[in-house]
Amino acid sequence: MRQDGRTADMGRPVTIERDYLIHPEGSVLISVGNTKVICTATIEERVPPFLRGSGQGWVTAEYSMLPRATGQRTQRESSRGKVGGRTMEIQRLIGRAMRAVVDLEALGERTVWIDCDVIQADGGTRTASITGAFVAMSIAVSKLTSKKELKKFPIRDYLAAISVGKTEEGVLILDLDYPEDSAAAVDMNVVMTGAGEFVELQGTGEEATFTRQEMNDLVELAESGIQRLIGIQREVLADVGTQIGRKEGE
Amino acid sequence: MRQDGRTADMGRPVTIERDYLIHPEGSVLISVGNTKVICTATIEERVPPFLRGSGQGWVTAEYSMLPRATGQRTQRESSRGKVGGRTMEIQRLIGRAMRAVVDLEALGERTVWIDCDVIQADGGTRTASITGAFVAMSIAVSKLTSKKELKKFPIRDYLAAISVGKTEEGVLILDLDYPEDSAAAVDMNVVMTGAGEFVELQGTGEEATFTRQEMNDLVELAESGIQRLIGIQREVLADVGTQIGRKEGE
Amino acid sequence: MRQDGRTADMGRPVTIERDYLIHPEGSVLISVGNTKVICTATIEERVPPFLRGSGQGWVTAEYSMLPRATGQRTQRESSRGKVGGRTMEIQRLIGRAMRAVVDLEALGERTVWIDCDVIQADGGTRTASITGAFVAMSIAVSKLTSKKELKKFPIRDYLAAISVGKTEEGVLILDLDYPEDSAAAVDMNVVMTGAGEFVELQGTGEEATFTRQEMNDLVELAESGIQRLIGIQREVLADVGTQIGRKEGE
Amino acid sequence: MRQDGRTADMGRPVTIERDYLIHPEGSVLISVGNTKVICTATIEERVPPFLRGSGQGWVTAEYSMLPRATGQRTQRESSRGKVGGRTMEIQRLIGRAMRAVVDLEALGERTVWIDCDVIQADGGTRTASITGAFVAMSIAVSKLTSKKELKKFPIRDYLAAISVGKTEEGVLILDLDYPEDSAAAVDMNVVMTGAGEFVELQGTGEEATFTRQEMNDLVELAESGIQRLIGIQREVLADVGTQIGRKEGE
Amino acid sequence: MRQDGRTADMGRPVTIERDYLIHPEGSVLISVGNTKVICTATIEERVPPFLRGSGQGWVTAEYSMLPRATGQRTQRESSRGKVGGRTMEIQRLIGRAMRAVVDLEALGERTVWIDCDVIQADGGTRTASITGAFVAMSIAVSKLTSKKELKKFPIRDYLAAISVGKTEEGVLILDLDYPEDSAAAVDMNVVMTGAGEFVELQGTGEEATFTRQEMNDLVELAESGIQRLIGIQREVLADVGTQIGRKEGE
Amino acid sequence: MRQDGRTADMGRPVTIERDYLIHPEGSVLISVGNTKVICTATIEERVPPFLRGSGQGWVTAEYSMLPRATGQRTQRESSRGKVGGRTMEIQRLIGRAMRAVVDLEALGERTVWIDCDVIQADGGTRTASITGAFVAMSIAVSKLTSKKELKKFPIRDYLAAISVGKTEEGVLILDLDYPEDSAAAVDMNVVMTGAGEFVELQGTGEEATFTRQEMNDLVELAESGIQRLIGIQREVLADVGTQIGRKEGE
Repeated sequence: MRQDGRTADMGRPVTIERDYLIHPEGSVLISVGNTKVICTATIEERVPPFLRGSGQGWVTAEYSMLPRATGQRTQRESSRGKVGGRTMEIQRLIGRAMRAVVDLEALGERTVWIDCDVIQADGGTRTASITGAFVAMSIAVSKLTSKKELKKFPIRDYLAAISVGKTEEGVLILDLDYPEDSAAAVDMNVVMTGAGEFVELQGTGEEATFTRQEMNDLVELAESGIQRLIGIQREVLADVGTQIGRKEGE
Repeated sequence: MRQDGRTADMGRPVTIERDYLIHPEGSVLISVGNTKVICTATIEERVPPFLRGSGQGWVTAEYSMLPRATGQRTQRESSRGKVGGRTMEIQRLIGRAMRAVVDLEALGERTVWIDCDVIQADGGTRTASITGAFVAMSIAVSKLTSKKELKKFPIRDYLAAISVGKTEEGVLILDLDYPEDSAAAVDMNVVMTGAGEFVELQGTGEEATFTRQEMNDLVELAESGIQRLIGIQREVLADVGTQIGRKEGE
Repeated sequence: MRQDGRTADMGRPVTIERDYLIHPEGSVLISVGNTKVICTATIEERVPPFLRGSGQGWVTAEYSMLPRATGQRTQRESSRGKVGGRTMEIQRLIGRAMRAVVDLEALGERTVWIDCDVIQADGGTRTASITGAFVAMSIAVSKLTSKKELKKFPIRDYLAAISVGKTEEGVLILDLDYPEDSAAAVDMNVVMTGAGEFVELQGTGEEATFTRQEMNDLVELAESGIQRLIGIQREVLADVGTQIGRKEGE
Repeated sequence: MRQDGRTADMGRPVTIERDYLIHPEGSVLISVGNTKVICTATIEERVPPFLRGSGQGWVTAEYSMLPRATGQRTQRESSRGKVGGRTMEIQRLIGRAMRAVVDLEALGERTVWIDCDVIQADGGTRTASITGAFVAMSIAVSKLTSKKELKKFPIRDYLAAISVGKTEEGVLILDLDYPEDSAAAVDMNVVMTGAGEFVELQGTGEEATFTRQEMNDLVELAESGIQRLIGIQREVLADVGTQIGRKEGE
Repeated sequence: MRQDGRTADMGRPVTIERDYLIHPEGSVLISVGNTKVICTATIEERVPPFLRGSGQGWVTAEYSMLPRATGQRTQRESSRGKVGGRTMEIQRLIGRAMRAVVDLEALGERTVWIDCDVIQADGGTRTASITGAFVAMSIAVSKLTSKKELKKFPIRDYLAAISVGKTEEGVLILDLDYPEDSAAAVDMNVVMTGAGEFVELQGTGEEATFTRQEMNDLVELAESGIQRLIGIQREVLADVGTQIGRKEGE
Repeated sequence: MRQDGRTADMGRPVTIERDYLIHPEGSVLISVGNTKVICTATIEERVPPFLRGSGQGWVTAEYSMLPRATGQRTQRESSRGKVGGRTMEIQRLIGRAMRAVVDLEALGERTVWIDCDVIQADGGTRTASITGAFVAMSIAVSKLTSKKELKKFPIRDYLAAISVGKTEEGVLILDLDYPEDSAAAVDMNVVMTGAGEFVELQGTGEEATFTRQEMNDLVELAESGIQRLIGIQREVLADVGTQIGRKEGE
């Protein structure tokens, strides 16, 4: 039994509040336990220099935390004058994950900007960001369809992410909150599609190691957690979701 | 009659949601019409170098906007690697305003960090920040009292802020939303105390000027708006508020 | 009676040395008591991106202090790698003030760069900068007229600035020097036009507040000080000044 | 058959030149095919602030590429004024990987600085850096032992890293060179210990996904490649290596 | 005959206005033709970390140009967020030159900060800075003597600098103004002491070269120019100068 | 006799390994005693803005040291976020030296980027960089000739550099290693062409001065050292070198 009463293979309560903000083309407030992230998607009608004239689109992401998303106040990266390594790592991960399910040619020469701003952190902010960002992106992209600006819906499949880990006692657990994450010997973030394929798998021993068997068990645990998240995404995206993964002519 | 149905002297609907986040010592989500700001207050048990050993405390503030708080996406200041002039101006204003009602000696050698993060912007983000930050600060400081760490409650009076302006047609209006603010000929931000005294008065002609009579009428309009805001603060701070401005021995 | 023998409503000696430097299109050395600022105006034949193709011009300002303009050496902002909040606030104020009296359409698609470099500081550097910059700008713009590059003289009115304040003893005083400014309870900067209208009014209680009556008295004091400064500007700009505010056809 | 004649499960030629530089406590030049990295280890007799007084040591890493390590000249990060996201990700990975096999308490309050400078890049620079850095670190740490500054040898096990990937045609390959890496659908970096346990596993679909079966096959491929690398490390570290992983009393 | 009527071996008119500013311990305005530099010297009662506890002092310099010191407006280094290569080169040169005539032990553990701010540039700003900075430093240091804070006057000799060059036509000229400097094939800056010894010699072919004979002739030309400058320094420093180079017991 | 057995007028062993890297158009590893520098030359088919459309080319240089090129680890300039003054001074020197022997018109509108990365430092890194960079540049430029992209070979003469100095005992020595350089009273860097003309002469008294006679003797010493270096360059550049300095029609 865990601190908050969950069993090892249980995820935290999840809510995804759609259209949380009035300005962005797509936005959600995702809550995973006490972790809360505002995810927005912005459509920009141009692409970075390396894609100009290619006919291809791009998806990129930025991630940040409010100073008091955390127990101790964290200094703003704007005050420090630079974006830290952890932030860079996370925002690169979010962008890469989104691109794995987007048909960039079908998107056309436009950029989807994903912004994930953690307003309250309690572990799993990067995976909550991915799960929420996918919904925000889907809403934003669906507005392009309704404006007939796309020939084909460019999102190929659902996408969600969760963390799994090994405690110091060797127990494998799903969806770690902050105290669990801080104490974990092994920490793994998994990003998967609706079809159950991997997009990203990042397992890290924190001054510790893990065996092949543990790797397999962790991955299985993550899989079950992600299926539940995708179920929630399907509900939230009821209207939009039917277009995801639709083949041409369907 | 204004775009949203208000008369010239009417403020927008205001709500202040207390204890919005779990981690900070004080936090609110303030909404003024569509403008929404998360204000938090953090108590740090030390002061900047210039006050060390002085027995005095300090109050300082930081302000930021999420990239999609605005209609067009705004680039993050952390990505640009520096804090812009507008942000600096606003955060200096917030800090100065708070300090005007705080007895820094009574606070003792500790710093109150105010963080105002605009999650949705529709005009008046700096004045909403001040009005919300005052509540967050009061909650945070009251926790020090309940821990018996203060001899005297260091907040001397209520404090709130509002904007007033002159339209291009010369009409004086209260609490400008974003379209009104963009079009205004004159824009004035007023910060006042519960006792009705000024803390800050910033009137600016935007490629325009204003007369002494207009100055007086604008100030009067602001005064009425601020009294209403302080009424709302009093309700939200019901338990804590009785300590504000209390003299020693009371 | 004040430290330097002035009465409360007396300004400091002011001199404006025209054409102080050989390179800029307009330049002055303004001295207000011991405060000395080199103000230059540069005409650039292009505008910032947001105005390209608009037919409109722009006026922008930068402000800096030599390290030993002050009693203690101040670290250079170039060495610190960033421009501080106070500098940003002042340079934004100077630019905004100039734009209030410039007809940007009449200026055409060009930028006036104002540079104010304080070589000696003794209080009131921002107001001295505005008063001096107006003269430098007028000279620079007049050279465009003489080259027949303008249809209409784009400066609509004179413009000057002064500070007023309330001492800790509650006396209202004009044109504060540095020791007075450091000790003042309330500090107000006022920018006005030749026609006696306000362009900018920034009153700030320094851990203090002020009443409506004090506001009115301070503004009145400022008004008299500014009229004197504009008188001096008129003399210095003898030849150029006749074009200021001239209507078409005059 | 691959471009350079290797079969899918074959690694590139590897050499590790020990004591490549005269100044550092430990240094190697590692070549993996055409990828060449100078890895150095520096012992500093102090730790970062968060560890002061803890009795624990620390291992941290920095990574960089010469501008012409690559086919096209890459701009220096010092000229751009900031360290990019890719660099940060890699140097965090290297540091974390080293720490997984170091007993930080046995190291005592000192820091091992790892520097990996790529002088020629042809794919796999981060894995070559880890493999080389481990050797440099072992040499540097062994000098502490010979000076009797350590009670116990703080390196618990060998450590090496390799990349594996899936080509666009779906073939799984070991130790990708740059053209293979650029074209790969899936790219996985694996860091393992001499005991065959995982320290880090980072699998990424580049606008593509991978199945659980593929994950398992890739991991197996990596395992064989890493065993070979550790064999080479053992030879290079002949004298020093006997201390690695030695239990107290051995 | 040169543009401004000088012969090849003639320097420009030089004036050094002492005590130009009220705040610094030492200050001058030096004019060399149209080149005008404000030089100040600040005494700080501490030294950089590498000298703490050594009993030795330090002299360091910073150099800057006002944006309109030049014909075209130069962007401020504070706005660009970094100090350029040319500035760094010049301020390192100024500091090194001063240190060559200062007995750092006699100075004691204090730092002399030299600030050279070019308000008008017409060639030779670095050499004018050195010549002026020497005077400012001497005044500042003499105040320490009068306060009895020094056992021995720490300035060993006079110091001044001048530029010489070779025109495209092969003529060797003294004290180049800006048009001459821009067109010169060879440019040499020479810093010498009152005793006629070299402190710094920097000869540079600008896409050109120079022979040994030319080197000797240039150096001789510089020598005569520097003697004249030191003569002017002696006059300006009448009272202070008697201490320069005085042996103990004198 | 010096520490390493050399007489005062003896240079250190020099080797220049050509085509050290596979990617750059020109590259060498130059060793001068224990000083080792990787020099590369990159041809970019465009020029900086100030030369666009001029028909002229450009040569520019960057210089850096690996953190452990030195006895103590040096912090990376990328981590500090800015390039230091010493680095700037050196890279400006290298660029300027190269340009002195390049006919920029014959080069055409392209840029030669020189990168000098010191992998091991033992004094004389800037002069070794120049000597090595000249070879790398010659190789890179000769590839343009063989591609018939040039009408005329744009390198006019050989170019090499060496340091000379005066010890504290007053002995003049050639090619200082790091301990000699640190202790020297006077330090002079000399850059010369194959024809024996000066390109750059930088003599600096380190808290010391030098006489005219010493200047002459130092220069003579440098001359002999440079002739030897150019002899080595001629051998290394056997095939390419015949084009250097060839007149049209030859």
